[in-house]
Amino acid sequence: MDVVTRRRQLHRWPEPGFAEFWTAATVIGELQALGYQVRWGVDASNLDEVLGLPGPDVLADAARRAVGRGADPRLVASLGGGGTGVVADLRGREVGPMTALRFDMDALPIEESTDTDHRPTREGFRSELDGYMHACGHDGHVAIGLALAARLADCSFPGNVRLIFEAAEEGGRGAAPLVAGSAVIGVDRLLCLHLGLGLPVGTMAAGNVGFFANTKLRAVFTGRAAHAAAAPEEGRNALLGAATAVLSIHALPRFAAAATRVNVGILQGGAAPNIIPAHAELSLEVRATDGDVNEELTRRVRNVLDHAAGMHELEVSVETIGRATTADCDRELVAEVARAASTVPAFATILERHDVGASDDATLMMRAVQSQGGQATYIVVGASSPSPHHSPSFDLDEASLGPAVALLEHLVRSPMLKGANTVSASV
Amino acid sequence: MDVVTRRRQLHRWPEPGFAEFWTAATVIGELQALGYQVRWGVDASNLDEVLGLPGPDVLADAARRAVGRGADPRLVASLGGGGTGVVADLRGREVGPMTALRFDMDALPIEESTDTDHRPTREGFRSELDGYMHACGHDGHVAIGLALAARLADCSFPGNVRLIFEAAEEGGRGAAPLVAGSAVIGVDRLLCLHLGLGLPVGTMAAGNVGFFANTKLRAVFTGRAAHAAAAPEEGRNALLGAATAVLSIHALPRFAAAATRVNVGILQGGAAPNIIPAHAELSLEVRATDGDVNEELTRRVRNVLDHAAGMHELEVSVETIGRATTADCDRELVAEVARAASTVPAFATILERHDVGASDDATLMMRAVQSQGGQATYIVVGASSPSPHHSPSFDLDEASLGPAVALLEHLVRSPMLKGANTVSASV
Amino acid sequence: MDVVTRRRQLHRWPEPGFAEFWTAATVIGELQALGYQVRWGVDASNLDEVLGLPGPDVLADAARRAVGRGADPRLVASLGGGGTGVVADLRGREVGPMTALRFDMDALPIEESTDTDHRPTREGFRSELDGYMHACGHDGHVAIGLALAARLADCSFPGNVRLIFEAAEEGGRGAAPLVAGSAVIGVDRLLCLHLGLGLPVGTMAAGNVGFFANTKLRAVFTGRAAHAAAAPEEGRNALLGAATAVLSIHALPRFAAAATRVNVGILQGGAAPNIIPAHAELSLEVRATDGDVNEELTRRVRNVLDHAAGMHELEVSVETIGRATTADCDRELVAEVARAASTVPAFATILERHDVGASDDATLMMRAVQSQGGQATYIVVGASSPSPHHSPSFDLDEASLGPAVALLEHLVRSPMLKGANTVSASV
Amino acid sequence: MDVVTRRRQLHRWPEPGFAEFWTAATVIGELQALGYQVRWGVDASNLDEVLGLPGPDVLADAARRAVGRGADPRLVASLGGGGTGVVADLRGREVGPMTALRFDMDALPIEESTDTDHRPTREGFRSELDGYMHACGHDGHVAIGLALAARLADCSFPGNVRLIFEAAEEGGRGAAPLVAGSAVIGVDRLLCLHLGLGLPVGTMAAGNVGFFANTKLRAVFTGRAAHAAAAPEEGRNALLGAATAVLSIHALPRFAAAATRVNVGILQGGAAPNIIPAHAELSLEVRATDGDVNEELTRRVRNVLDHAAGMHELEVSVETIGRATTADCDRELVAEVARAASTVPAFATILERHDVGASDDATLMMRAVQSQGGQATYIVVGASSPSPHHSPSFDLDEASLGPAVALLEHLVRSPMLKGANTVSASV
Repeated sequence: MDVVTRRRQLHRWPEPGFAEFWTAATVIGELQALGYQVRWGVDASNLDEVLGLPGPDVLADAARRAVGRGADPRLVASLGGGGTGVVADLRGREVGPMTALRFDMDALPIEESTDTDHRPTREGFRSELDGYMHACGHDGHVAIGLALAARLADCSFPGNVRLIFEAAEEGGRGAAPLVAGSAVIGVDRLLCLHLGLGLPVGTMAAGNVGFFANTKLRAVFTGRAAHAAAAPEEGRNALLGAATAVLSIHALPRFAAAATRVNVGILQGGAAPNIIPAHAELSLEVRATDGDVNEELTRRVRNVLDHAAGMHELEVSVETIGRATTADCDRELVAEVARAASTVPAFATILERHDVGASDDATLMMRAVQSQGGQATYIVVGASSPSPHHSPSFDLDEASLGPAVALLEHLVRSPMLKGANTVSASV
Repeated sequence: MDVVTRRRQLHRWPEPGFAEFWTAATVIGELQALGYQVRWGVDASNLDEVLGLPGPDVLADAARRAVGRGADPRLVASLGGGGTGVVADLRGREVGPMTALRFDMDALPIEESTDTDHRPTREGFRSELDGYMHACGHDGHVAIGLALAARLADCSFPGNVRLIFEAAEEGGRGAAPLVAGSAVIGVDRLLCLHLGLGLPVGTMAAGNVGFFANTKLRAVFTGRAAHAAAAPEEGRNALLGAATAVLSIHALPRFAAAATRVNVGILQGGAAPNIIPAHAELSLEVRATDGDVNEELTRRVRNVLDHAAGMHELEVSVETIGRATTADCDRELVAEVARAASTVPAFATILERHDVGASDDATLMMRAVQSQGGQATYIVVGASSPSPHHSPSFDLDEASLGPAVALLEHLVRSPMLKGANTVSASV
Repeated sequence: MDVVTRRRQLHRWPEPGFAEFWTAATVIGELQALGYQVRWGVDASNLDEVLGLPGPDVLADAARRAVGRGADPRLVASLGGGGTGVVADLRGREVGPMTALRFDMDALPIEESTDTDHRPTREGFRSELDGYMHACGHDGHVAIGLALAARLADCSFPGNVRLIFEAAEEGGRGAAPLVAGSAVIGVDRLLCLHLGLGLPVGTMAAGNVGFFANTKLRAVFTGRAAHAAAAPEEGRNALLGAATAVLSIHALPRFAAAATRVNVGILQGGAAPNIIPAHAELSLEVRATDGDVNEELTRRVRNVLDHAAGMHELEVSVETIGRATTADCDRELVAEVARAASTVPAFATILERHDVGASDDATLMMRAVQSQGGQATYIVVGASSPSPHHSPSFDLDEASLGPAVALLEHLVRSPMLKGANTVSASV
Repeated sequence: MDVVTRRRQLHRWPEPGFAEFWTAATVIGELQALGYQVRWGVDASNLDEVLGLPGPDVLADAARRAVGRGADPRLVASLGGGGTGVVADLRGREVGPMTALRFDMDALPIEESTDTDHRPTREGFRSELDGYMHACGHDGHVAIGLALAARLADCSFPGNVRLIFEAAEEGGRGAAPLVAGSAVIGVDRLLCLHLGLGLPVGTMAAGNVGFFANTKLRAVFTGRAAHAAAAPEEGRNALLGAATAVLSIHALPRFAAAATRVNVGILQGGAAPNIIPAHAELSLEVRATDGDVNEELTRRVRNVLDHAAGMHELEVSVETIGRATTADCDRELVAEVARAASTVPAFATILERHDVGASDDATLMMRAVQSQGGQATYIVVGASSPSPHHSPSFDLDEASLGPAVALLEHLVRSPMLKGANTVSASV
């Protein structure tokens, strides 16, 4: 299947994080057919590190739909509990380093635009899963990964190639279980790809900065229900506490020391108009371009949550449901990627430094590889979306896909790195 | 089935407003078997007046479960769209007035207590529908209505009796369609019963005051989604607007002119922690012991909603999803009920005036009957609940049930009213 | 000076609570000239009980202005520290009870209307003290008290008469020091007068209900200043804490058990737009028609203040600056007042029960008199204000003044009470 | 007077913006005595451009105190209405450019630390004006300016020197009237000095970036007073509106496009605890490192203010009380300043680029000079304050003062610029 057709197929089936059952099953099947050694579930991920797992209803629905679309039920079962991450290895014919490439698979809880100006709608590959959408380009990432896998199936490359199909990148949840599992063991070079991020088609960035460290929290407020007319004073209003927290969290100070972000992204509370709300739950994130500032801002958010609860005489429990860190791209590897890009005619503009202004828990993988002596970089390939990431009209210019495959292929086939960790083909 | 057994059967199956499919089907079957002329759906209610209909998923689930519990699928289908209200007529053997009695059937979205101190739990008739509970005594009301129906099946009473089984009293939604339909046409005397309301077993109130006029609103805020890190300023945050509204609505002034209440009972918004929330929805209620004050307070709430939206550059739409008014009990009828109560030994204390401090859209029926020249009263029979109405540990002392049946039976069999509207038995 | 001229003279010089230097000096001078035994300062009040004393600048300014208007500087000095309350006794020629009458003297921090529809403006007796106004009728009360004092100077009455000119009734501050001092010792009958309170001229109420128990608090938040651009995160924002408290205090629940009120009446904070505010101070009040509810609501307000501070990492100190309680009027005395009112032709309508819907710390005096075996009532004389109390256009219809004097004179000259505490004229 | 003694003299008398009567009078007197041509008031500033003038009471008090400290009353009078800015010219003996130097004079409304760790307190030159403090180093700036003036009085320099003593830099108010007046006419080179800004003694920055564009607003909310117990619903609560605005303004989004700041720095409202607040006033600022973002954020703040008023049925008026823009330092002039600094031994570290992270309306002067073909730079001389600017423990290391004078002297005596606007000494 060509990379554009594949991207459209994936676009129609946008599964949220840790529920990528059909997507992962498709990836596993393709890669096994191509000769890769493939592992998933507990063989790839340490499920103790899974944060922010969706509720059992969401997972069961997604699994049922995946089976309905043709996935093997036993395979789907083995992907449960946060185990949708996939790791696939292939040994090249010559001695060389292990090159790992990261592709993330998950979609977002966004209702895709029905506007006919929106190409997926106009050309008939709009999301078939109500309320979900590939609005961050991960459909393109998986399509690139599978196209690359097919090209490399000839094994004409030095060393080893490892394809990491990450679950649940959104929310900063999927990298940690893979890092704690087996995904980065032995990796010499890690290439993390992302499409878009504000760059136009024809531009690529071989190195990137400006990653936001990121903490995601869920807070559950518990109060006491009461009849809203007969005894309002008997209640303890969890929604008032949550609303106070929303405002006060957003009102926390800007920092001079780093760029910061806060967002209470979800709030749900209460049961009926005539009952004092006894329950409210919110999910939020904190970000900063500096790790210490992210810690401090997270501390202040937790303090607001505690006192918003105390103010309205509620209980509150707070748990971390996602996180990412900052990371630096290795200069040597950046230079190599830039040189490789110069061999791809489509890349008219090659940047060595670009500010992503976002978070990606690929940074956890990058740091893990660097801490074992390897090198890592984060590559952006421009995709000219007409609308921002995470909006209902986000789209990829599919002219970005082929060059991205060509770039990665070149990097695997012609590695320059000959570092201490370089392994022989026989490993 | 005796009244206590019936109440426990109903308690186990608490269906929310307009989704009382099994309950209504049971009532219809019983009454038809006893010889009543029964109507429901569009024959009883004007469905144009239905406010606050649950979503199609909730209704479909409830219908499926009702059928699964034995309800006739065709009958269930005819109850849809807000048509679960039931009206049943029986003609007595002698000339006399038409006496109508109102029993409401719906339950609340409250998770029932699992504490073994809670009798329904301890004695095995706790709710079987997760997240729903008969926490306002309507199970008892229906049980009383069916027991009364059985006793009156001998037709030994003057005039006509009409049993009105109201849907969706909670939220102030069920009376309007019945009033706009055929439920109160020709009624001379209307008796609206409620158990509990702060009175102990052995006490009853033949007349009541202190009804809250009530308006229930749903507000939907629409903003614009954006990536919370890459472009937060592109978003328009619907959750911030909603949280601002929650605080400012609760902060509206107390009124010197009447007792008032406000409660934002439900708030749901946002999609993911890393997306600026584009959507938020809240349901709320306003109450006042004076109708004009209720109107003014509702106006102010709408104004807060409009400006909370404008403040964060959102759209907002607001719809009325429920309402109730105030009403006065007719003195003559109150006196008659008090005299009738004095014939029931269980009523050690008989009040002619009690402050309910709550809303009931039975007030719409009362006003409709009074406007056509009839009389109406609202009767409370004490039930000694250990916990407030609308709380997870609410319970009825079942010793309240038998005397309530006896009282109503006496009122139907021995009416004193001989007013202008009194109709002959042959009507 | 006739009672209308006196009221207008007082209206032009509205001194706030505990700063009634010119007013008190005028009262003292008049009463001494008439032969009363007059005490003030520490001889009348226990200054340890003074709450909510204005700042030294306010007091010094007021004292300077009072001297500038002719008050004796040494007398003014003796009124300091909260000692502006005045107690004056006169012994009648016959044996009889001690009748005390309460008149409050203080004005409000309201800028009086400059509209020519407002009679004080049109007729040239508008406030001469910028930012202050007699907007609650206390100018009329003092005028009535002085007119009564003049009439009774003939000593043709049984027992003793005691005129209590209370300082600082607004804010519930002036009664406690007088009660803890010598003002109510030996009193058999206490008559507390108020003009207006919603009644028209020609109507009076001999007994009143619906007093709000009342607690007034001042909260001071202390944070940390910082440069708002260079280091906002170094600051701790006291204004954010205070604003959060304002919203959350107003959003506390209505109570089913009693009518309640909350009002944050003053907020001041911050120093400059480019400095994170390190200081904020607010003054508020809580009221309820039930003392226990007032206590509970006050507890909740304090809890909100504590957590609003904690949420923004501030210190907060909270002090009580005023209070009032509820009180009941004695039936026997109410009946006597009603009979006396029937002798005054101007009173076309005489009520024995009226709902004041306000607070007055005269209730502290009433309870003190009742606890020593005496009787007390609160009398309202209608005054037909075109605007509410405490508004810039409040005004008295001066036709209310003469009848009020006549009523009180009759009550002193012809007392019916002959209770256990009745004292001989020689005491 | 040596520069340290002068700085301490000025430190003891910190006058706020547009009220620098004693400071300006001192500057004028010194400069006239040295032979400078000095202008002030309407001769230096266009008073139509004055924003954020303090109230008449503040100005009158400051003027009275200045006269009390020895300033000539007629001179003080001529400085009123925002006219405290001073411009002084001196012609050198040779042909050359006109070099202008900006020194700001105003202090801040901060209560200076009384801690003996704070050198001004320990060594006896703490502020003598309660509630005001030189907490941003402007005392040092004026001392440097006067020391420089004395050295240059020998006229041994080419061209002309112009000393601009700016009023009211804090709040972004003083530059605009000077620019609209005569302060920058004919200027070829503008040197704007600031001490501190995070740099230690021994470090200087010849060029600076990171200026925040800045808008300062004052908003006045007007509602309706009412008795807080008797008729709360009659009121329109201006403090609730203002508190809502405070929270919602701080909760406006962070921007990806630029660093931003918001701060509501002052809020005052209400009159008494028992009156619904009819008035509230707040002063705030908005900043962004990009002018367009500053405009957009200001637009959003105004929108919040409008809707906070609408939400509580208030009127609001909003006025701009200060502003600053961004500016770029001219590279050629930066290089010249750096070379000059290298001749001053005390400067161990010389930076060509430093991020100020603050606003200064000197940027308005810089842009004006640049638009007429001149050059401008902003120079920072490190001063090792133990505490941040605008905090009660801010202090200058006085070792910074002498080198700053030497640097500026060198720049005036040995200008390199020979641009088109260079004027002859005979002009």
